[in-house]
Amino acid sequence: MFVGVDIGGTKVAAGLVDMYGEISTPVRLPMVSHDSAEAGLSAVLQAIAQVISQGDAQVSGIGICSPGPLDPATGIILNPPNLPCWRNFPLAEAVQKVHRVPVQVDNDANAAALAEARWGAGRGYPSVFYATIGTGIGTGIIFDGHIFHGRTGAAGEGGHVSIDYRGPLCGCGKPGCIEVLASGTAIAKRARQKIVAGGKSSMLGLAGGNLDAVNGEIVGEGFAAGDPLATEILTEAADMIALWLGNMIDLLDPHVIVIGGGAAALLRPLFEHMRQRIPKLTVNPRSVEVPIVSSRYGADSGIAGGAALCT
Amino acid sequence: MFVGVDIGGTKVAAGLVDMYGEISTPVRLPMVSHDSAEAGLSAVLQAIAQVISQGDAQVSGIGICSPGPLDPATGIILNPPNLPCWRNFPLAEAVQKVHRVPVQVDNDANAAALAEARWGAGRGYPSVFYATIGTGIGTGIIFDGHIFHGRTGAAGEGGHVSIDYRGPLCGCGKPGCIEVLASGTAIAKRARQKIVAGGKSSMLGLAGGNLDAVNGEIVGEGFAAGDPLATEILTEAADMIALWLGNMIDLLDPHVIVIGGGAAALLRPLFEHMRQRIPKLTVNPRSVEVPIVSSRYGADSGIAGGAALCT
Repeated sequence: MFVGVDIGGTKVAAGLVDMYGEISTPVRLPMVSHDSAEAGLSAVLQAIAQVISQGDAQVSGIGICSPGPLDPATGIILNPPNLPCWRNFPLAEAVQKVHRVPVQVDNDANAAALAEARWGAGRGYPSVFYATIGTGIGTGIIFDGHIFHGRTGAAGEGGHVSIDYRGPLCGCGKPGCIEVLASGTAIAKRARQKIVAGGKSSMLGLAGGNLDAVNGEIVGEGFAAGDPLATEILTEAADMIALWLGNMIDLLDPHVIVIGGGAAALLRPLFEHMRQRIPKLTVNPRSVEVPIVSSRYGADSGIAGGAALCT
Repeated sequence: MFVGVDIGGTKVAAGLVDMYGEISTPVRLPMVSHDSAEAGLSAVLQAIAQVISQGDAQVSGIGICSPGPLDPATGIILNPPNLPCWRNFPLAEAVQKVHRVPVQVDNDANAAALAEARWGAGRGYPSVFYATIGTGIGTGIIFDGHIFHGRTGAAGEGGHVSIDYRGPLCGCGKPGCIEVLASGTAIAKRARQKIVAGGKSSMLGLAGGNLDAVNGEIVGEGFAAGDPLATEILTEAADMIALWLGNMIDLLDPHVIVIGGGAAALLRPLFEHMRQRIPKLTVNPRSVEVPIVSSRYGADSGIAGGAALCT
């Protein structure tokens, strides 16, 4: 059994994961890291201790998804904007000192990609391109059962591949990243903009007349109800993601594309539309063969991902 | 010694290549493939025979750059638009039958990337991203001394990574590929368009008043002479290539970027400009460290590349 730990800006989740990728005894604690590195570490150690005591299992490794940037080779957190107290913090070493088992650290999208390759929708495929579409867009690349880390551990940042060099600026400072164009946040923002611009839509009513409440879920409800504006917005997002996935296929030619994340459900009805677009958006003559599938793991992808780092 | 062979639409070039990547006894014959697969094969075999007899060397392998798509695992040419007679043609097998040494086949950019990694500007780096900027833009990815082929052999088509999802259609049918935006062809076309649109420039004079003669070289001459329109066009192209290379760094995090091809000379004065842009066009906090260097091989990259396939 492994312990998988998923550290967010406000919470830390952890669970036991078995050799089939099944999660048990999940716990969730607040992440209190604003005061000091030790306070953040303490929350992580407490979550791990709770999981181990509740699960009453022999644990052979601990894997942690942490906000980056980080160095997966050493388990050192470099300078995370969402956890400033952890600047140059040796997280793997600190946890290993307490629990005396191997500790691995990586970012959440890389770890979740590995969990999908080991136990999930990417199982059995030699290479996996994984994308998690939520507030942002994260990606991970798996080659032959290993996370592709590149030179510095920072490879696989497909969410910051730009498909619009003159496009809107992403939070990262670069124009036209797929994240700023087609994440859940971007989809909801575009819906609000189009409603403000006078687009007729049932979405405002679904949000109780409150424009600020028009979020990704409301767009999804509108789409399911046949709302033309919601359909237009989601189809645009699916077309952008299809072009971006076409880029990934032409560059990486993976065996499978796995899509997860909170906003993936929004786009799932459009997966077939995306599949049909991709042959027109690739030079790879066999791009049509690449399956585009939904991830096994949902909100618990970080727990499974952490554990997968131990395998 | 290896024989490297470079097959183009109209010519076949070949040469002997030693273990240091030095090319000797180069030959160049017309490629006559429009009649039959055998005529094309005959030109290739003749070029190889000439190289071997002139070089008077023991040859331990033959490597061939061929127009694709092709299957590098089997050496079968699939359905090349520029060599229609070679549809499903087992090129490696046909050459091996005659010369009785191992024969490898790959596309020119992959092979040239490998030659740079073995013997050229990428030597000593564990991973190499190679781009050849000429009539089109081709790329090759080298990981740990091997061409990255992906699932079907069609990986590494970075020239067809789009950075403008609403952009002009590339020859491949996809909008906004870097090839249609910043190849030598694209640069020359933009120069002619801007001149027609009334842009003041010395380039038309440099081309003897003939608009059709405004090509990449003329743009380069204009830039060298300080022509503002030529400077604007090349800076735009360099900015687009910098964003595209930023995408490659965020996805692949390579140890070095090697740039070759006929139009690379045009952009060389702007390499420093590109290097300065890249940190703003990547989330990788160490992107500034990635060297961007000129290739060792020029017009003979296909010969060196072919030979590198044998190593």
